[in-house]
Amino acid sequence: MLSATHLAYALRVASRVSYPLRTPDVCSIARTLDVFGDTWSVLVIREMFLGTHRFDQLQQHLGIARNVLAARLRRLVAHGILSKRLYQEHPPRFEYHLTRKGVDLYPVVVSLMQWGDRHLAGPGGGPVVLEHTSCGHRTELVPACRACGKPIDPREMRALPR
Amino acid sequence: MLSATHLAYALRVASRVSYPLRTPDVCSIARTLDVFGDTWSVLVIREMFLGTHRFDQLQQHLGIARNVLAARLRRLVAHGILSKRLYQEHPPRFEYHLTRKGVDLYPVVVSLMQWGDRHLAGPGGGPVVLEHTSCGHRTELVPACRACGKPIDPREMRALPR
Repeated sequence: MLSATHLAYALRVASRVSYPLRTPDVCSIARTLDVFGDTWSVLVIREMFLGTHRFDQLQQHLGIARNVLAARLRRLVAHGILSKRLYQEHPPRFEYHLTRKGVDLYPVVVSLMQWGDRHLAGPGGGPVVLEHTSCGHRTELVPACRACGKPIDPREMRALPR
Repeated sequence: MLSATHLAYALRVASRVSYPLRTPDVCSIARTLDVFGDTWSVLVIREMFLGTHRFDQLQQHLGIARNVLAARLRRLVAHGILSKRLYQEHPPRFEYHLTRKGVDLYPVVVSLMQWGDRHLAGPGGGPVVLEHTSCGHRTELVPACRACGKPIDPREMRALPR
């Protein structure tokens, strides 16, 4: 087992990823963080994955001010991460759903959750556990190579209370 | 191929992850985002993975104000994500390195990058590409099940300019 230091060194190819590739205009990490804007946006996306789609329920589950929630939803719709659908005409009421671009955030949301489970939640682990329905295990998601690995389909995963 | 909507529905087990499990005190996603605080912290961690460990180089690569960088480094050290080491005694100079807790952020950083590559970078893709040295492919990382999949070791990955 190599140390964390050794591991970090092994990952670097510093001289080959030149500084212009790292500017905020170009870096995909910086651009992604710029879209999210803040914590609330990620938690709104979490709620979508857990099946919450209506304003009042989102507001209740997140304990967020209505004007802040409305602003975050508008932003996520403007970025094409959520779509807005009329589900009632009189009076007009809307639901929010993840687009394909939004569903593609699944690895981001899960990797944030799992790091928190491991390093911030204490010995009992975090409040939610994932089950891989294909193999039947309560499990973690780990990064695999698209070329030689065996990726899961998010539809095979279930979120359960620990 | 199911639609994004169908996929989002398939992921939910809303009634089983009750609301107390989602409060910011308990949710591992909210707690993780609270540690990062902002975009700069994630970009500092990106630089560590790319082999940048000294203050002046970090400042130059990120184009960040010195006082802001100093505050972010202090915060990441306080949270045990970075460790600080003396590399020169007269005058005292320090390097910053990822701890094990910091190295465990690899899936977070890569999933942020890949989402930006796919959805924000345009048809040419993002500036950095990953190579899986074990199988020799330029590839993406995808989530796999720890129980039945074949996870990569971060030491097998190289970051290269696209």
